[in-house]
Amino acid sequence: MKIARVRYNKKEFWGIIKEAAVQILQEPPFERIRVSKRSVPLAKVKLLVPTLPTKVVLVGLNYRDHAAELSMAAPDEPIIFLKPPTTVIGPGEKIIYPPQVSRLDYEAELALVIKRRARNISPAQAARYILGYTCLNDVTARDLQKKDGQWTRAKSFNTFCPIGPWLETRLCPDDVRIRTVLNGDVKQDSSTAQFIFTVPHLVAYISSIMTLEPGDVISTGTPPGVGPMKTGDIVAVEIEGIGRLENTIK
Amino acid sequence: MKIARVRYNKKEFWGIIKEAAVQILQEPPFERIRVSKRSVPLAKVKLLVPTLPTKVVLVGLNYRDHAAELSMAAPDEPIIFLKPPTTVIGPGEKIIYPPQVSRLDYEAELALVIKRRARNISPAQAARYILGYTCLNDVTARDLQKKDGQWTRAKSFNTFCPIGPWLETRLCPDDVRIRTVLNGDVKQDSSTAQFIFTVPHLVAYISSIMTLEPGDVISTGTPPGVGPMKTGDIVAVEIEGIGRLENTIK
Repeated sequence: MKIARVRYNKKEFWGIIKEAAVQILQEPPFERIRVSKRSVPLAKVKLLVPTLPTKVVLVGLNYRDHAAELSMAAPDEPIIFLKPPTTVIGPGEKIIYPPQVSRLDYEAELALVIKRRARNISPAQAARYILGYTCLNDVTARDLQKKDGQWTRAKSFNTFCPIGPWLETRLCPDDVRIRTVLNGDVKQDSSTAQFIFTVPHLVAYISSIMTLEPGDVISTGTPPGVGPMKTGDIVAVEIEGIGRLENTIK
Repeated sequence: MKIARVRYNKKEFWGIIKEAAVQILQEPPFERIRVSKRSVPLAKVKLLVPTLPTKVVLVGLNYRDHAAELSMAAPDEPIIFLKPPTTVIGPGEKIIYPPQVSRLDYEAELALVIKRRARNISPAQAARYILGYTCLNDVTARDLQKKDGQWTRAKSFNTFCPIGPWLETRLCPDDVRIRTVLNGDVKQDSSTAQFIFTVPHLVAYISSIMTLEPGDVISTGTPPGVGPMKTGDIVAVEIEGIGRLENTIK
């Protein structure tokens, strides 16, 4: 099932995408999915970012092939960092290239959205706390990341967290293909089978540090092949079983 | 003027503290301060955390005496990091010592709360965007900070960001004394005259990266003398012209 947030006739709704239609939901999808009798044509809506998180938690090095590319040992625990909510944009929105940045990189990532409050859960419980999966681009000012040592500034500029185009609730995240396509050229191409830490492990780990709220986002790291973008580029994150998140650089 | 959030008779209010009374505000204090005719005795209220931020942005090394203590050069730009909103607690609330942490440190900091949305403002404009100043304890798992390299996990456990006891709107932050008192012993004792980057510079700098929302918190770094706490300890951050933020370790 594909859960989306859409704008139609100047109003915003949650909905379920079924073929060429969006069935409007009676309430946000976190407690339960209650479909109304109303539906609108998919072609007539604007897809919005499919969650409004109180926090976005990301994981560093989490692909074995990426660690190998960097000649780094796999970490024994996940390295986490945060992006502020002000970084989040939806599909089709513009990523703004800040004037103080000289190298702006894409990082394709599989992200998940939290369904219900989670604190100190086990990996075996994690699936019950996940509403769905989506694509995320962890846009990074590579020059500032290297200069600061701490990654926060480099990853926290407004628009640096495109998420979408919708949430897929039925994905099995163990072995799906993940790609970045930049102006039509494939730049990253790997599979979540390369994960060092699996999704249930990551959700349990992060919930042992902080309470996760409904709508919060966890992103699972990027595969090899990160690289730069320039103004005017069209960047897409494509994940098998979910879809394509496309944004342009402004 | 001291702006507080208080609980009284099971209800929560914003108010102004005047001597032994809290004058209840008609609305949150961000747009304007509108006092109602109602007041309650200060002795009868519970002081709550004086803001509910969408983000908490903190600054690394920002005291010249702390840089000297660490034999580090002063940075040429502020190093920023984030704590998630789930870290925030109020005066008198308990800091929870997580089982996976072996060294838990206090870090006394002067924090400010944003009054109105700020994006790309200049240092000269900063004062108009600040609602008030308060005390903040940047509780840090020092062992995990060293292990991870990235500071996020070490600073992001629930309860790791005590803030309060209220906001002081009239503080001039150029030279105020800041102390940590642990079980009655003074552990940190410096002045904001030691700042490497001043408050207006920090607000302008952070607003050039991300949009700051009303209620967001910026914290300005800690002076020399950071050190460990243990279960049962009573830790207080005291800032001249503001007051005392006290919490116990559980």
